[in-house]
Amino acid sequence: MTPLKIFSDSPLGANAAKMLQEGVGPHELIVPQTRVASVLAKPEPDPQFAFADIAFGQPDLESIERSERLKWIHISTAGFTRYDTPEFRALVAKRGLIVTNSSTVYAAACAEHVFAFMLAQSRRLPQALRSHAANSSPEWAWLRGNSVSLRGQSVVILGFGVIAGELVKLLAPFEMKITAMRRNPRGDEGFPTVTTEDLPSALATADHVINILPDNATSQNFIDATRLAHMKPGAVFHNIGRGTTVDQDALLEALRSGHLGAAWLDVTEPEPLAADHPLRSEPNCFITPHIAGGHSLEAETLVSHFLENLRRYVAGSPLLDRVM
Amino acid sequence: MTPLKIFSDSPLGANAAKMLQEGVGPHELIVPQTRVASVLAKPEPDPQFAFADIAFGQPDLESIERSERLKWIHISTAGFTRYDTPEFRALVAKRGLIVTNSSTVYAAACAEHVFAFMLAQSRRLPQALRSHAANSSPEWAWLRGNSVSLRGQSVVILGFGVIAGELVKLLAPFEMKITAMRRNPRGDEGFPTVTTEDLPSALATADHVINILPDNATSQNFIDATRLAHMKPGAVFHNIGRGTTVDQDALLEALRSGHLGAAWLDVTEPEPLAADHPLRSEPNCFITPHIAGGHSLEAETLVSHFLENLRRYVAGSPLLDRVM
Repeated sequence: MTPLKIFSDSPLGANAAKMLQEGVGPHELIVPQTRVASVLAKPEPDPQFAFADIAFGQPDLESIERSERLKWIHISTAGFTRYDTPEFRALVAKRGLIVTNSSTVYAAACAEHVFAFMLAQSRRLPQALRSHAANSSPEWAWLRGNSVSLRGQSVVILGFGVIAGELVKLLAPFEMKITAMRRNPRGDEGFPTVTTEDLPSALATADHVINILPDNATSQNFIDATRLAHMKPGAVFHNIGRGTTVDQDALLEALRSGHLGAAWLDVTEPEPLAADHPLRSEPNCFITPHIAGGHSLEAETLVSHFLENLRRYVAGSPLLDRVM
Repeated sequence: MTPLKIFSDSPLGANAAKMLQEGVGPHELIVPQTRVASVLAKPEPDPQFAFADIAFGQPDLESIERSERLKWIHISTAGFTRYDTPEFRALVAKRGLIVTNSSTVYAAACAEHVFAFMLAQSRRLPQALRSHAANSSPEWAWLRGNSVSLRGQSVVILGFGVIAGELVKLLAPFEMKITAMRRNPRGDEGFPTVTTEDLPSALATADHVINILPDNATSQNFIDATRLAHMKPGAVFHNIGRGTTVDQDALLEALRSGHLGAAWLDVTEPEPLAADHPLRSEPNCFITPHIAGGHSLEAETLVSHFLENLRRYVAGSPLLDRVM
């Protein structure tokens, strides 16, 4: 077949860049004239884009719209807010574009991150790592008596995709009661799923609520005062989706009132939160700076995942992580 | 049968004490004249002990030796250093005593605690929870790039008992390479075991070394400069056994030189470590105050475990957690 032209604006390290260059084989790699600083920064249109058959990275909407050759977009993140609009979906449908993302690359790390949150909370690590408590002191007894086994606890997962699938595998030995909320339950999830309508009763029994919702028009402030009130007293809320899906004022109030046991947030709105944001000084609010998907082999896995999809694309096989 | 007399010096909460009182049924509970403050404090001989058939708690050696009726000692902890001597074992053999401990009560919590250590380290939680890093900043890139998946990593467990058995179950989804050091490998562990002789080569490949060794004459300073040097550069050392099994000066040096990636300690010598002990200010040393076995249902589980053994004792069945 004719060599394809691949526009890649992913900021990769030297090793991963070399993997990509070698891995595309006969196909041609086009890099933008201006390097992209961050995957979350808004990219600038690049004149080279017009020649691309494939875009790997975070291509800007204007370039996609103008392009006459483009057939497949492989997004280098798991989230794809910029593209998750009715207008873009209409463009994709009209032009017959294929859109894939990199969920798989980050899914295992995201699952391990939120699992680390759950265990750190259940073993009271933030408090215990600060403590110099003597054996049998009241502080020591508090730490021991407030450590809770995950075994048999209830979990509600908001947003069922590859990350949730990975997490469920990790939780298996704990025999937890797992319920997932999915826009369109398929019945093959292997455990109960609910839609938004049935969510209140699921939230009322959950020891851990895990939010993996993406950022889109329907998810804005999904976790609001009402849904927080549905959660049972002492529940622990985790967010590794997007900060915009949570009403942070309502979350702060739920923590201050003691209704929520704790909140573990890898994402906030904005990022980073201001140093003096009240959630930062809330004793039971624990924040990491949007690193859940990160791992030591991130760039290499990102490239090998794209190359596997390139192989499939050339062979006419179904692509991994197709989102549109 | 004749009702048995059970001497119990376990400091229990009201709920667990009531469970015990009701659970012993026709048998008689004897409590010491002076309440015991801590399970690790040296108990004083109590005149009531002489009437006991069974001791549940931490009976003192002098009382055991003097007693003419005692047949079964159920120790209320997992560790049993005080009793783990040649002299005591000789007494047990001569008198035909049965000795059980409470390993099972604390095993699941201990396994979850060290698992929380492993995940917190692999996801860099101590650093991440302090960070206000902005997306794409060098600190952010460091946190992401230094988060490592547990999947496929190697673990060496020192001391194979109920805790190790629980931990191995929890680690299953990560498909780790697990090796255990056991005094007397039996071959039915389900994965490779080594003796002390083969330990150096096992330590050389381990990403995580997990010390669950009890405190006894052969385990003092088991983790010394030599064994620390056997560990591979960047390895993470965990201790949920006893502080005396580690040469803390050598550990400090292994951390300072950068040979060890990190140390996570639930036990130290002494406990608590002085506030100005150099391990406390070592950036990659993380200490919790001997709480690994603690959990919210600890006292109740301790009592129900004893009552199950009492049922077995009366029925003449083999006892759980028999150690001598």
